[in-house]
Amino acid sequence: MGLLESITSPQDLRSLSAPELDALASEIRDLMITTVARTSGHLGPNLGVVELTLAIHRVFDSPRDRVVFDTGHQSYVHKLVTGRSADFGSLRQEGGLSGYPSQAESPHDIVENSHASTSLSYADGLAKAYRVRGEDRHVVAVIGDGALTGGMAWEALNNIAIAQDSRLVIVVNDNERSYTPTVGGLATALTTLRTNPRYEQVLDLVKKRLNAVPGVGPAAYDALHAVKKGMKDALAPQGLFEDLGLKYVGPVDGHDRDAMEQALTHAKRFGGPVIVHAITRKGFGYDPAERHEADQFHAPGPFDVQTGAEKPKGRIWTDHFSQHMVEIGKRRQDVVAITAAMMHPVGLDAFAATFPDRTFDVGIAEQHATTSAAGLAMGGLHPVFAVYATFLNRAFDQVLMDVALHKCGVTFVLDRSGVTGDDGASHNGMWDMSILQVVPGLRLAAPRDVSRLKELLDEAVQVDDAPTVVRFPKGPPPTDIDTIDTIGGVDVLVRDGRRDVLIVAVGSMCTTAVDVAKRLSDQGIGVTVVDPRWVKPVAPAIVDLAREHRLVVSIEDNGIVGGCGSVLLQTLNEQRVTTPVRLHGIPQEFLEHAKRDAILGRVGLDAQTIARGIVEDVTAVTDGQALHDADHHA
Amino acid sequence: MGLLESITSPQDLRSLSAPELDALASEIRDLMITTVARTSGHLGPNLGVVELTLAIHRVFDSPRDRVVFDTGHQSYVHKLVTGRSADFGSLRQEGGLSGYPSQAESPHDIVENSHASTSLSYADGLAKAYRVRGEDRHVVAVIGDGALTGGMAWEALNNIAIAQDSRLVIVVNDNERSYTPTVGGLATALTTLRTNPRYEQVLDLVKKRLNAVPGVGPAAYDALHAVKKGMKDALAPQGLFEDLGLKYVGPVDGHDRDAMEQALTHAKRFGGPVIVHAITRKGFGYDPAERHEADQFHAPGPFDVQTGAEKPKGRIWTDHFSQHMVEIGKRRQDVVAITAAMMHPVGLDAFAATFPDRTFDVGIAEQHATTSAAGLAMGGLHPVFAVYATFLNRAFDQVLMDVALHKCGVTFVLDRSGVTGDDGASHNGMWDMSILQVVPGLRLAAPRDVSRLKELLDEAVQVDDAPTVVRFPKGPPPTDIDTIDTIGGVDVLVRDGRRDVLIVAVGSMCTTAVDVAKRLSDQGIGVTVVDPRWVKPVAPAIVDLAREHRLVVSIEDNGIVGGCGSVLLQTLNEQRVTTPVRLHGIPQEFLEHAKRDAILGRVGLDAQTIARGIVEDVTAVTDGQALHDADHHA
Repeated sequence: MGLLESITSPQDLRSLSAPELDALASEIRDLMITTVARTSGHLGPNLGVVELTLAIHRVFDSPRDRVVFDTGHQSYVHKLVTGRSADFGSLRQEGGLSGYPSQAESPHDIVENSHASTSLSYADGLAKAYRVRGEDRHVVAVIGDGALTGGMAWEALNNIAIAQDSRLVIVVNDNERSYTPTVGGLATALTTLRTNPRYEQVLDLVKKRLNAVPGVGPAAYDALHAVKKGMKDALAPQGLFEDLGLKYVGPVDGHDRDAMEQALTHAKRFGGPVIVHAITRKGFGYDPAERHEADQFHAPGPFDVQTGAEKPKGRIWTDHFSQHMVEIGKRRQDVVAITAAMMHPVGLDAFAATFPDRTFDVGIAEQHATTSAAGLAMGGLHPVFAVYATFLNRAFDQVLMDVALHKCGVTFVLDRSGVTGDDGASHNGMWDMSILQVVPGLRLAAPRDVSRLKELLDEAVQVDDAPTVVRFPKGPPPTDIDTIDTIGGVDVLVRDGRRDVLIVAVGSMCTTAVDVAKRLSDQGIGVTVVDPRWVKPVAPAIVDLAREHRLVVSIEDNGIVGGCGSVLLQTLNEQRVTTPVRLHGIPQEFLEHAKRDAILGRVGLDAQTIARGIVEDVTAVTDGQALHDADHHA
Repeated sequence: MGLLESITSPQDLRSLSAPELDALASEIRDLMITTVARTSGHLGPNLGVVELTLAIHRVFDSPRDRVVFDTGHQSYVHKLVTGRSADFGSLRQEGGLSGYPSQAESPHDIVENSHASTSLSYADGLAKAYRVRGEDRHVVAVIGDGALTGGMAWEALNNIAIAQDSRLVIVVNDNERSYTPTVGGLATALTTLRTNPRYEQVLDLVKKRLNAVPGVGPAAYDALHAVKKGMKDALAPQGLFEDLGLKYVGPVDGHDRDAMEQALTHAKRFGGPVIVHAITRKGFGYDPAERHEADQFHAPGPFDVQTGAEKPKGRIWTDHFSQHMVEIGKRRQDVVAITAAMMHPVGLDAFAATFPDRTFDVGIAEQHATTSAAGLAMGGLHPVFAVYATFLNRAFDQVLMDVALHKCGVTFVLDRSGVTGDDGASHNGMWDMSILQVVPGLRLAAPRDVSRLKELLDEAVQVDDAPTVVRFPKGPPPTDIDTIDTIGGVDVLVRDGRRDVLIVAVGSMCTTAVDVAKRLSDQGIGVTVVDPRWVKPVAPAIVDLAREHRLVVSIEDNGIVGGCGSVLLQTLNEQRVTTPVRLHGIPQEFLEHAKRDAILGRVGLDAQTIARGIVEDVTAVTDGQALHDADHHA
């Protein structure tokens, strides 16, 4: 591991010889493979950008020049050559290196966000700022072809195209995939570029052919050339980027470091925005990844380095959703499925295999997914858009205006809701139950276990005049929790005779609530635990139950501000219920990466902490009550 | 007005002769001009689509075929030929015709939303639904060139390009403008298309020229043609849409009804998605509109039909913001301004005129506006993005992840917040103070008057480590309200000795609150009215004041769910303040169009209704208290 150890900053790369750089690339691959095999993480994308990243850091001068990675999980190589190789073993561990760029880790990092398609907008802003401030600095954005399917990338390109004095280099890392092959017209256009002989080559060829025609010769070529000029380059194979007015360099083999450095140097000298089109292979240099058909080891769990075999995983929530969707699809011909470039991760692969004509992969395009779902619903179908909870934020306006305002029956299935942990702040699905509260007519369900997932999904796809949401967390579901009674659609999970505390538990927090109840019961506190199943709107039964208890406690794995507990408090206040209410949820802050359970513990969403809090609150309430009682009898 | 009266459905258009259609077009223009001169509304866009709309309704069979208008304000002509001409005088009046399509008005209407760039997604969904269901129906989407700068339009095009069996016709209504000229690379690309001789013409020309070269003749042309084929159409002037794989027809003169009908008929027969590129002129056929440089009478207030002179308007909030931005710009070289294609409507025109290099119009692209603002902030500047409150919903994820997570000092100025009224449900800015509550670190200010607008804007642009928001409503600002005391940053507006009711009033509701206080005071109820100025985070002083009163009342022109009152309630609950809290805000529903004041009255946000409610609440609280007191002394 000698070479990598000697690289403490990108400057150290510049003095290396070609064989040394090859050896370094090899070391980097080895270290990434062995580390991710242990820690899990994003492997395929990083194996694909080794040479490309080395080239960028040899041609540009980070951190003076800024390098922005789109969907930051492709930044491992960047981390390794910016002084973090010694810490790389702590990748994605609590207190260790983030799986994404991190300003706290290094001045070479700038954009930490994992949401796709943002890099060009950041880069446009940075380049404009440097221009306004008169600073001579370059900005390099690295964006995959998948991320180019996201609308905001196009909004950015539209602006970059006219910022002709921006010192901005866009490296399109074209591996023909996001998780899975990139879809749509853009993919077609990129393929055209990949296979197109460039303009000059075409003209050469035309010249050659014309010369080969007896009696034609250079005059014909000149005539053609004149026509071409007259047509304002109408004959040039402009391609998508040049149509927009963007200078284009490529295609370049992204694994040919020399070619990449040459292209980047050329782009750097141009003095305006330039696209460098690099062709790479996801998983490059590691056989098991290159051979892995589903996603080239996009983000494997722990695996065996020799064989690439992933450690067996238990069935997760997604698997149960996946299976049940197929069953719904069989029953209901009108149910169709939508994914935003995440067919496998959200579990729609089974549905797609069974009903290919009823499945739509729209690219990394949550806005289009949502509004086209509204269109599908208007056309008489019932779409189910399965998406990671955090990514639905991208389509808030579309949920509100395009689906809810138009009373469309669209079901949103939010996977990875609540705390996801390892992937850091931008992956946690802790916002949906707050922002969706404001959407008129929307109904939101949070299943506590697999049986409820199936029931609630069945109910959701029956609603044809409003958006419905079914959200569940990352990882394996808990053991089913039996319903001991149902009151107005609300499941009672625990009840004893005394009515001290009513716990309203949301989704995966039901398991925690039952544990809390046991702890309270051991201390002689009478607890009722209910699962509303549908948490929006608030069930009238919950209001009635609240009146009958001395303390109401809500528990949810969502941000505390404006979440289910908050709306419950607001509803009880509106209904003049005076029972004290205590809310338990995620503090309203961005959470550092760590394991899900570690974070839940850290923020006090574990059974022990919640139970302790309730004991204190019950005591306070009871004391207050006792005081009142004492007063009354004074 | 004879002809228009006879048109009760689009079918009636088909039997009209060419001269009759011309006369009808003329009648339609006259009616729209005279009506909007009185009611106000969107004039320029509708004058531009008269022939285009007639052509669509003659070629397609609505409502069996579906016509989706992007940014529905261009649907007046459509309304007039689908049986609503008799009601047109009630345009935008309470109980009258909506200024946008409305499902309640007509089966010919489908998409009601005024947010731009959605039509292609709806259309893609509809067309796919008809395909899945085996229905032979066409979908026509009418989208302006301005709306094509929005990212979701590109997400849609990317998908439509590969849905080769969709019976979908996209009419690009290219008038080179949204409010103002369309910006960016797309505009350049459209210009290229507008001026490009089409492929066949180019080949013809080449043939002609080659034939003119002595000794060349047809053989050379054939050779060239062969080369062309071999190059897989590399020589064809593909243009943006064809690069994506979309069939393109045009450009067509959008005011030449015959040409439009021909192009649409051609497109209809094609059997797959087709772009029809129509060139139109905003304001066409009405001199004052065509001559109007700023925006071709995009959406004038009442005006004189003869001269086009708009009735004089008083200064609105926007004007004061506009002026103060220039002052800030003079003081602060680092302050830059961003608009999403609404330079004049949001009042940034003055800033742009003074600081052209520090002003960025990004197109209808709120996502890019927000994330490029983050980039500008990272580059050392302080961007101010001025936008209608309702449109910031489009960039919720970007505010959260790209600005707040990265601690960027970006100021969002939300114009037209609260109830806007005339433009219907999708224009009301009643969501921002709920969804922005969840954004960690974000600070939100709601100025009550012009003096506060200036103060708070000054304070906002000084925050360099978090997003700040300053929001104000539509229309003229109220008279300034003096501060009689300041407690911990909170302005006290009204205070008498007794502390019965604390009214926490947000922004424009301060004027209402002072009125309420007067009414309560007349009834012997002691009131304190405070203006928190910064409504997020909740000032500790408010919590202290709440403890000292018998009732806390919040008033805000935002949705009641999760708004300022809700967060205040949650904060007081968390701080164990037991003073009863009553929230006044907009009910969480989509509001029908009407005048702002009418709506505020309808939802109970007028002083009289609020005062009445408070009297009841105070009585209830005091009775409860009296009861307690009685108990205490029993």
